[in-house]
Amino acid sequence: MGRAHSNGYNRITNFFPELEYTPVLKAVCSRNAVKVQAFADQWGFESIETDWKALVARDEIDAIDICTPNDTHAEIALAAAAAGKMILCEKPLARTLEEGQIMVDAIDKAGECGVPLKTTVWYNYRRMPAVTLAKQIVDSGKLGKIYHYRANFLQDWTISADLPQGGEGLWRMDVDAAGSGVTGDLLAHCIDTAMWLNGAITDVSAVTETFIKERMHQLTGKVQPVGIDDACIFHCHFANGSLGLFESTRYARGHKALYTFEINGADASIRWDLHDLNRLEYFDHRDDSIVRGWRSIHVTDGDQPYMNKWWIPGCGIGYEHSFVHQVADFLKSLETGGDCSPTFKEALQTQKVCAAVIDSANSRSWKDTNVDSDFV
Amino acid sequence: MGRAHSNGYNRITNFFPELEYTPVLKAVCSRNAVKVQAFADQWGFESIETDWKALVARDEIDAIDICTPNDTHAEIALAAAAAGKMILCEKPLARTLEEGQIMVDAIDKAGECGVPLKTTVWYNYRRMPAVTLAKQIVDSGKLGKIYHYRANFLQDWTISADLPQGGEGLWRMDVDAAGSGVTGDLLAHCIDTAMWLNGAITDVSAVTETFIKERMHQLTGKVQPVGIDDACIFHCHFANGSLGLFESTRYARGHKALYTFEINGADASIRWDLHDLNRLEYFDHRDDSIVRGWRSIHVTDGDQPYMNKWWIPGCGIGYEHSFVHQVADFLKSLETGGDCSPTFKEALQTQKVCAAVIDSANSRSWKDTNVDSDFV
Amino acid sequence: MGRAHSNGYNRITNFFPELEYTPVLKAVCSRNAVKVQAFADQWGFESIETDWKALVARDEIDAIDICTPNDTHAEIALAAAAAGKMILCEKPLARTLEEGQIMVDAIDKAGECGVPLKTTVWYNYRRMPAVTLAKQIVDSGKLGKIYHYRANFLQDWTISADLPQGGEGLWRMDVDAAGSGVTGDLLAHCIDTAMWLNGAITDVSAVTETFIKERMHQLTGKVQPVGIDDACIFHCHFANGSLGLFESTRYARGHKALYTFEINGADASIRWDLHDLNRLEYFDHRDDSIVRGWRSIHVTDGDQPYMNKWWIPGCGIGYEHSFVHQVADFLKSLETGGDCSPTFKEALQTQKVCAAVIDSANSRSWKDTNVDSDFV
Amino acid sequence: MGRAHSNGYNRITNFFPELEYTPVLKAVCSRNAVKVQAFADQWGFESIETDWKALVARDEIDAIDICTPNDTHAEIALAAAAAGKMILCEKPLARTLEEGQIMVDAIDKAGECGVPLKTTVWYNYRRMPAVTLAKQIVDSGKLGKIYHYRANFLQDWTISADLPQGGEGLWRMDVDAAGSGVTGDLLAHCIDTAMWLNGAITDVSAVTETFIKERMHQLTGKVQPVGIDDACIFHCHFANGSLGLFESTRYARGHKALYTFEINGADASIRWDLHDLNRLEYFDHRDDSIVRGWRSIHVTDGDQPYMNKWWIPGCGIGYEHSFVHQVADFLKSLETGGDCSPTFKEALQTQKVCAAVIDSANSRSWKDTNVDSDFV
Repeated sequence: MGRAHSNGYNRITNFFPELEYTPVLKAVCSRNAVKVQAFADQWGFESIETDWKALVARDEIDAIDICTPNDTHAEIALAAAAAGKMILCEKPLARTLEEGQIMVDAIDKAGECGVPLKTTVWYNYRRMPAVTLAKQIVDSGKLGKIYHYRANFLQDWTISADLPQGGEGLWRMDVDAAGSGVTGDLLAHCIDTAMWLNGAITDVSAVTETFIKERMHQLTGKVQPVGIDDACIFHCHFANGSLGLFESTRYARGHKALYTFEINGADASIRWDLHDLNRLEYFDHRDDSIVRGWRSIHVTDGDQPYMNKWWIPGCGIGYEHSFVHQVADFLKSLETGGDCSPTFKEALQTQKVCAAVIDSANSRSWKDTNVDSDFV
Repeated sequence: MGRAHSNGYNRITNFFPELEYTPVLKAVCSRNAVKVQAFADQWGFESIETDWKALVARDEIDAIDICTPNDTHAEIALAAAAAGKMILCEKPLARTLEEGQIMVDAIDKAGECGVPLKTTVWYNYRRMPAVTLAKQIVDSGKLGKIYHYRANFLQDWTISADLPQGGEGLWRMDVDAAGSGVTGDLLAHCIDTAMWLNGAITDVSAVTETFIKERMHQLTGKVQPVGIDDACIFHCHFANGSLGLFESTRYARGHKALYTFEINGADASIRWDLHDLNRLEYFDHRDDSIVRGWRSIHVTDGDQPYMNKWWIPGCGIGYEHSFVHQVADFLKSLETGGDCSPTFKEALQTQKVCAAVIDSANSRSWKDTNVDSDFV
Repeated sequence: MGRAHSNGYNRITNFFPELEYTPVLKAVCSRNAVKVQAFADQWGFESIETDWKALVARDEIDAIDICTPNDTHAEIALAAAAAGKMILCEKPLARTLEEGQIMVDAIDKAGECGVPLKTTVWYNYRRMPAVTLAKQIVDSGKLGKIYHYRANFLQDWTISADLPQGGEGLWRMDVDAAGSGVTGDLLAHCIDTAMWLNGAITDVSAVTETFIKERMHQLTGKVQPVGIDDACIFHCHFANGSLGLFESTRYARGHKALYTFEINGADASIRWDLHDLNRLEYFDHRDDSIVRGWRSIHVTDGDQPYMNKWWIPGCGIGYEHSFVHQVADFLKSLETGGDCSPTFKEALQTQKVCAAVIDSANSRSWKDTNVDSDFV
Repeated sequence: MGRAHSNGYNRITNFFPELEYTPVLKAVCSRNAVKVQAFADQWGFESIETDWKALVARDEIDAIDICTPNDTHAEIALAAAAAGKMILCEKPLARTLEEGQIMVDAIDKAGECGVPLKTTVWYNYRRMPAVTLAKQIVDSGKLGKIYHYRANFLQDWTISADLPQGGEGLWRMDVDAAGSGVTGDLLAHCIDTAMWLNGAITDVSAVTETFIKERMHQLTGKVQPVGIDDACIFHCHFANGSLGLFESTRYARGHKALYTFEINGADASIRWDLHDLNRLEYFDHRDDSIVRGWRSIHVTDGDQPYMNKWWIPGCGIGYEHSFVHQVADFLKSLETGGDCSPTFKEALQTQKVCAAVIDSANSRSWKDTNVDSDFV
């Protein structure tokens, strides 16, 4: 993810020259000095660090971007908050709800004695133009009363039993580093988008599965039990009375990163699919009945979200652009004094749902999420 | 459904002339003599009855086709079984598991003293050529170990609060006549296909919703509580270790009759969609990696199931053909002495899952289905 | 095609019971007595003939349906016209424009002394519900000024060099029997639909190709030059100022019977595809710009053409239904006294375009079509 | 296009750090000093010029990138060649074949006395990963003997009669600046890809149309005749015996930039669509017949062209990435001493086809293209 974030910062001058603030890449930190220097050269960082504490200690740095494995988010965030720095954190916010709560508390505390600390969590899909357009459509009321929300995030990269767990490039397979499997990695995205578009999820009933029970651990060299969830399914209620349905897996042969969502309202419906990220599907029941159908909207026109920054109609953009948009919105929030959603506090709500999902699966029972009632 | 069944019988001579047995439409029964005579004229029935008991009593009739509302299935079936007649029954088999069990018991009893009674239930989607092809692919082992099965059946015809419940053309809205809402009407189809393709469902966790709580009842003229489920979602385990996910609703704006299913195996995946019923999607991981992708198979070639009976490659067939195929297979079973699946006993397994689903939703807990261990 | 026509007649009582006239299948004719008797039994014909002249001579027969190879259309039609019988003729009307003109003249002459003879040519695609809907949309003016019309008909069944020409099931490969290759067989359909929807084609510039120059002839047993066009492409002008583009081939690997057309107007566009025959794509520029896109209309609702005769919304129909619709419209024309388009005279206009196309390809020059100025 | 090119140069260090050469943006030139300074700041150019001749005169500059309107390509290229500089030129190479020939001659002459000048023309679509994959598939021989090539490029942005011609942002509407309409602007792309994939086009038969005959000219303020072709269609022969079909228009309502191509071979077919640029469709007749279908290949895996440079499988890239790839390939060609296709000489072949197309349309006759016989 370091590449996607770095690209985000590097594109601002080119595509958002009107912004008041511009990112300056003061330093990048990683344990291997040789590798991190190469990375710094590649992405234009002025200096390197091999100890993140040194980085946080540097006075001329205003913002810390955390894109390390999940098990380090809390510690780094707490230090950064204590140092009064703005924080951009990879998703999920933390491994567990408890860790996330500590992080939010630290931000609150840091903000008590003056200006609140700026935070944002990289739930980047909100800023895919087609997804942002979905938000505009929902907010316009065009959908009418909402009945159903469904989302899935399907991958197939861990089907082989020979894939090790843990270690370089594979920490997502290690429950200690990741906190959970697809729930925190993939469903967290689905939940973030869902609550942004459709409001709070109030209770959940989930099932998880670990299809391959033991894998060799890269760090220990031993075959060990797998602690993560390979697949997770849950249904739920939203505060607005609609039903939700979510599924994620890394065992859906044929799907590389199929994040899709669909919302059905009394008057209209929308759906989106990451594999065709420049399109939004829209059905409007108010269309004349004989010519009514799902519309395939190619979201590449200048009057559609963010698209006046890019190319001509019909010419799509890619995955990384959502990160550029989030950087731009973060910088804009410095101008306007608003938030760059989701803040840590907002991302904590997603964490609550993830925790309830895991809890529900483990206990084979419905669980309340305790998402803030004034959320969204 | 009377039209779809009648069409099925009428097409046999034209498209399956090689069959040993040919249906003879001796009589059709309905309460309104004028209407039923018109129906008989339209579909070539030799005579009419207005009392189904008179029909069942006629000696020259070998088989009874039940396509009345669900609340009459059991009574008619019991009488037909007692009279030793073959029975073809609309799905779901019955309103409840208990009713279904009584029907199966009656068939068993009727068969005790001689030849077993032939039965079949009109789970017609099994005989869509693309679905039958899916079965062939599953049975060939091409998919490898199965990880996921998901299906949904989405409609949008009951969203208006002005739609009455019960009465002419609307008995599906009346819980007394229908037994349940989308669970028995739509999910029953999904479950039947699922267990046919992927084996027994062992336990379920479900949620149901009735979005519009009261509707005017057409028969009483009064606004009454709605007893059916407007929507139902459940996840489940299959006996083979795969996870299942099912959803049905009549509140998914934009979907007329979107029955879809998808199966993900370690080696390959398939999916199907009733709105494009002549196509089967297929992904094979063994394809050369750089040219690997989901294949859209247009199931209209003579070497694909049933398609040597119809037109030239590329020229699709429609919804009603699945009923023709079921009649043909039923007649064939008379020649061969085999079963025309699903029999009453097989359809009872689907009834068990439906019952567990409703029970799970009502109790907010997981429920075992008790599907026969030797089933499928 | 005899099966598709016979099915058309057989379905009327079931699906169009309100019509005043009902087809009675008096006799079917073919040279092989055994085979034709089997066909008669299968499709409900009262009697058989093995000499078509005997059939035409029978007084109790009111209408002759010609579904023999193209080289026999004219002779049979002339005899039928002389006998004062209504004629339904497979497309194309004839092998050549000259033959077609003789047939039209014969009909005119037969009609001179009284009631004009009813004729129709089986350009069945007009009566696919989605195509009929396209006609309604065009006629409503929704498209605005038309700029472009494009159509193709792509197949792949003759790629093998081992496929013989001529004889049983292969007369379409024999230029003497067929008159031409894809031009008369496939482009004729495209041209018929095009002029029905978009008016007269005035001039054409074409190219044809015969990829495999010699094939064994099934009747002679000898390898002979192939006389048909394997592929044909042409562009053209329509009388309304729009540009047309047509392509057909039997060498497009992967396409079984891909007949597609698209019309682009100043305000809206439509397109259709035989492989997904229940769908019509529609784009309306007047839609609100941010939610504008191609609509995929599933043409299965009761307010869409012919669909009140069939099943419930979402449940598609197939290829053969277009023939049922043409029979119904033909019978209806007997009630109303109107025409069942296309009549021989209308189909002759398509013949003119086909002739100009072949002539253009042979002479490598533009050719006027001389389509009647008052046509359509 | 200046933005797309500048982005191309700016991304090299980030995504192709292994390259020996790195672009240094010495200067950017445009007539308006204020605007060009802003552009230089936005894209990281070290300096500006307002007279292109001053730019060409600067010794420290090794390469000139021409992305001005078509009427200036030749003059700038001649000066750059005379100054011995490498040249990257926007497509089409020139307004006319004659201008293009002069440019190629100048390059040849400049190269005579030593090292040949490096040139490339920005036919960027070759370097869309899915298109490059298409080239790999063709070169592998998987398609078998080729029968058909078809391509179109459909837009709808000039339908309004109120759109002026010429001037700021609209020089493509002015025949003096552009040379032609869709032929040079859009079909040139289609022809370049086609001959790259399928070899030389030998002769063409074309039609063009200018739907709106007069438009206000922005520079003169007067209503003047429109000199460009709004639409152009042609069919053709390729040297390998296959038939070609090309269409382009700016009057296809509903299509923003629909560049599609399809190739049909005896054994397999492929097709691509710019609106879904990360996908390639592939049909292989050698697949097992019952599971044969068009494959939708999501070209986002690391073993597919260029994709090891970007993100994880399933995460698509956009339009601008094709320019980054061309810069990278150009830089690589400096290392290896090879060409970065298409060179000026190769792009001249496309110019020959464009000239023959315009000539054919004007003369209503077939024209030979005189594409070099040893081309491709």
